[in-house]
Amino acid sequence: MAQKIPYKIYLSEDELPKQWYNVRADMKIKPAPLLNPATGKPVTLEELSNIFCTELAKQELNNDDAYIDIPEEIQSFYKMYRPSPLTRAYFLEKALGTPAKIYYKFEGNNTSGSHKLNSSIAQAYYAKQQGLKGVTTETGAGQWGTALAMACSYFGLDCKVFMVKCSYEQKPFRREVMRTYGANVTPSPSETTEVGRKILEEFPGTSGSLGCAISEAVEAAVTNEGYRYVLGSVLSQVLLHQSIIGLEAMAACDKYDIKPDIIIGCAGGGSNLGGLISPFMGRKLRGEADYRFIAVEPASCPSLTRGKYAYDFCDTGKVCPLAKMYTLGSGFIPSPNHAGGLRYHGMSSVLSELYDEGLMEARSVEQTSVFAAAQQFARIEGTLPAPESSHAIRAAIDEALKCKETGEEKTILFGLTGTGYFDMVAYQKFNDGVMTDYIPTDDDLAKGFANLPEVK
Amino acid sequence: MAQKIPYKIYLSEDELPKQWYNVRADMKIKPAPLLNPATGKPVTLEELSNIFCTELAKQELNNDDAYIDIPEEIQSFYKMYRPSPLTRAYFLEKALGTPAKIYYKFEGNNTSGSHKLNSSIAQAYYAKQQGLKGVTTETGAGQWGTALAMACSYFGLDCKVFMVKCSYEQKPFRREVMRTYGANVTPSPSETTEVGRKILEEFPGTSGSLGCAISEAVEAAVTNEGYRYVLGSVLSQVLLHQSIIGLEAMAACDKYDIKPDIIIGCAGGGSNLGGLISPFMGRKLRGEADYRFIAVEPASCPSLTRGKYAYDFCDTGKVCPLAKMYTLGSGFIPSPNHAGGLRYHGMSSVLSELYDEGLMEARSVEQTSVFAAAQQFARIEGTLPAPESSHAIRAAIDEALKCKETGEEKTILFGLTGTGYFDMVAYQKFNDGVMTDYIPTDDDLAKGFANLPEVK
Repeated sequence: MAQKIPYKIYLSEDELPKQWYNVRADMKIKPAPLLNPATGKPVTLEELSNIFCTELAKQELNNDDAYIDIPEEIQSFYKMYRPSPLTRAYFLEKALGTPAKIYYKFEGNNTSGSHKLNSSIAQAYYAKQQGLKGVTTETGAGQWGTALAMACSYFGLDCKVFMVKCSYEQKPFRREVMRTYGANVTPSPSETTEVGRKILEEFPGTSGSLGCAISEAVEAAVTNEGYRYVLGSVLSQVLLHQSIIGLEAMAACDKYDIKPDIIIGCAGGGSNLGGLISPFMGRKLRGEADYRFIAVEPASCPSLTRGKYAYDFCDTGKVCPLAKMYTLGSGFIPSPNHAGGLRYHGMSSVLSELYDEGLMEARSVEQTSVFAAAQQFARIEGTLPAPESSHAIRAAIDEALKCKETGEEKTILFGLTGTGYFDMVAYQKFNDGVMTDYIPTDDDLAKGFANLPEVK
Repeated sequence: MAQKIPYKIYLSEDELPKQWYNVRADMKIKPAPLLNPATGKPVTLEELSNIFCTELAKQELNNDDAYIDIPEEIQSFYKMYRPSPLTRAYFLEKALGTPAKIYYKFEGNNTSGSHKLNSSIAQAYYAKQQGLKGVTTETGAGQWGTALAMACSYFGLDCKVFMVKCSYEQKPFRREVMRTYGANVTPSPSETTEVGRKILEEFPGTSGSLGCAISEAVEAAVTNEGYRYVLGSVLSQVLLHQSIIGLEAMAACDKYDIKPDIIIGCAGGGSNLGGLISPFMGRKLRGEADYRFIAVEPASCPSLTRGKYAYDFCDTGKVCPLAKMYTLGSGFIPSPNHAGGLRYHGMSSVLSELYDEGLMEARSVEQTSVFAAAQQFARIEGTLPAPESSHAIRAAIDEALKCKETGEEKTILFGLTGTGYFDMVAYQKFNDGVMTDYIPTDDDLAKGFANLPEVK
C-alpha cells in the first residue's frame, strides 16, 4: 500500500536545492547562440557584459555545466518564501470525477504573487556583487517588476522599472506595490529614453508593449553609469534560476514516489515552464524517465503553435541581441482584449529548441475558456489564480477529463505560477459575461513575420 | 545546543488540531451573557437560534466544554490552506539588531487573504448541516466577506453580503473576488432592508458602517426563509473556530521548544487575537505557564484603551442581542481617514473580560506609525501586510527595540493576520506622504458613550 499523499508537500529546509540545474548541459542540440545584430556573429561575453551583469552573462552563455551553485545569500533569501508547496488537487479531482491524480506546484505564496522572485533575487544578487548602483527592467502585467522591486529593496539597489503604459494605467495597485518596495516606475513608452521618444513619434498614443519597454530599459541601463539590464523571462539564465521550481517539485515527487506522466505549464517567454520542466526534461534527455510536456499559450499570442522558428529581435527597438526562437515577429502586439501576461512575441531559445525537436508539445487556448477554468479552480481549490497560470489549469483539467473518458489513472503535474489579486478587472469582465476571445488571422501573423531579420 | 529553528515551521497533516479550544471553559469569571434587548434577560438558545444556526448558537452559549471536535469535513477543508506557517523573523531581527527572537503566525496564504476563512468554513458547514439555503453577513474591509463567499461556494450555499458602502466603492476588486466565488454583494446601507431605508432616511448620503451593515444582514436573515446570519468576529463562537491559529502556533512552539514571553495581536472585534492567544491563555489560566498578551488597536478606534466596559448594542440598528464589552458606543464611527479594518465600536466579550481582569494588556497605535512598520516589514520580511496586521507588527517591533535597549532576549510571537493586496489606496497615501493620523477627542467619545443602553 502506497504512502498516503498529503494535500500539501513541503520539503524541509535541508531538502532544499543548493544548486540550480542547467538543462542546456544535457541537450544534444544546444539552443542557437544569441547573435550580435551588427556583426551577425554570436555575441561574446564581453559584448553581453555591457548589457547584463558579468556573472549573469556567463550563465547566459553556459551550455556546459549541468549544476551551478546557488550562492549562500540567495539560498537564505529563498527560505523567506520557499519551499513552495506541491499540492495534491484532491478537491479538483473529486469535483471532476476523474481517475487522474493532479498535482500543482504553487509559486504564488509570496508578495510578488508569482515565481518571478526566484530569478529577480538572483539577478539582484549578482548586480550587488558587481558593485552596481542599480538595475533597469520592463514589466507587463507587473509581476516581474514587483519581484525585482522586492529583490532590489533587499540588497539596497536602485530599481528602475519601465511598465507597459496600458498596464501602468490599468493596474495602479501593482505600481503602488513596487513603490512600496522603493522602485521607480515609469510608463512606457516614455520621453525619458531616445527609443521611447522615437516610438512615441512613430505611434502617437500607443499603449505600449513589452518589446518597447525592453528597449527603453536596455537603453537606460547602457546609458547610465553603474546600471545593468535585467529580464524576467525568455533568457536561459532565467530558466536556470527558475529550475528551483522543478528541482523542488522533483524532490517532492521522488520523496512520495509520485511519477508524473504529463507536466504542464503556461508559456509566455518560458520562465515558469522552463523552470518547472528542466530537471524532468534532463531525466528524459538522459533516458532515465519519460514524460509528456505541454506548453500552454494564449490563442491570441501563439508563438509556439503558430510562430516561426527563426532568428528575431527580442525587443521592438532592436537594441538587444538576436535570438533564434519561435516568434510572431518583434512587431507583433496581441489584441488589447487579451487579459494578463503571456503577451511576448517570442519564446525562450531553450524551449524553442526542445519544442522543435519534438521533446515538448504545445497547445493554445482561448481566454474565455481559461477564465472558466480559473473560476472553477478558485471555487474548488480555494486559490484565485493569475490569468497566466490559468492557461495551465485549463490544460490540466482538459487532460484530467480525457482520463475520465478513458479511465486512465494518469498523474498530471502543472505549474500554478501565481495569484490573480491584481487581475480583477479581467475577472470582472468574465463575471459580467462581456469577455471575448481573439484569434489573430493568418494575415495578422503575416505582418509580424514580414519584419523578421535576415540572418545568414 | 538547541535545535536550529527553521525559517518556517509547517506542522505535518497528522499534527493538525482535531479539536477547537474554548478558552471560556478555563475562565474563572465567565464572559457576561448576551441579553435579549426586549426582556433584559440572558438570551436563550431558542432565541439565538432565530438568528444563528442552532449548532453555532450552542457554541455561542457554551462556557463549559474546553474542547469541541472539528467536524471531519472542516478538517478536510482546513487542509486546503492549512497548516499556516509559523515563521521565524530572522531577517527582521537582523535588521533591527535586536537580541529578541521574533516569530509570526501568518494567516494570509489563502485567497481570502486572512484568518477569516477559519471561521467562515465552520459557519457555512453548520448552515449546510442544518439544511439552510444560505447565509447573510456584513463585511467592512472585505476579508470576511471574501472568506464567507469562499466557504459558501464550497458548500453550495447562497451568500448575501452587505458591504459597508465606502468599502464597496473604494474596493471594487474585493467585491469582484466575492462575485467570482458566486456571492451577492450589496452596498450598505441599502434600500433592500427596512433598517437600511431607515438609516438612509436619517443620514442621507452616509458612507455606512459595520454596525449598519450588521443590522441589514440580520434583518435579511430573519426575514428570508432558510437563511441565518453569520458574523466574522466579536462572537465567542468565532474565537472558538479561530483557536486553530493558537493551537497550531502552540504545537509548533512546543515541537521546537519555543517559549514565547510576549504574544501580540491586532484587535478589531477580537477574532484573530482571541484565536491566537486562546490556548496560551488557557495555560496561563490553569497556572501552567505565564505570558504577556498585548492587544493592539488603532488610536482612531480605541475600544479597549479608551472604551467603557458595559452592555451595548452590537449593531447600529439595535436588532442584535446586547453584549457586555469594552465599547465606544454603537453609534461611534471612526474617522474616514482611518485605513483598513479594526473599525468596530466594541470588542469580543471574552477578550473584554480577560482585559478587565488584567490578564491581557492593550495599547493603541497611530496609523502613520503602523504603515511605517508595514513598509519596513514588507521590505525586510518580503510579505506586504494588511493594515490591520500591521498594528501587531508595530507593537512587535517596538517590543523588539526595547529588548535591544535592555539586552533582554525575549521571545515575541505575533499574529500576521493577512496581506494588504487590496489596501493599495492606503499604501499609496502613505507612499505619497499624505496619510494623516486621527485621535478622537474625549468629547467625540462622550457622544458614543451617551447612547449606551441602560441595563439593570
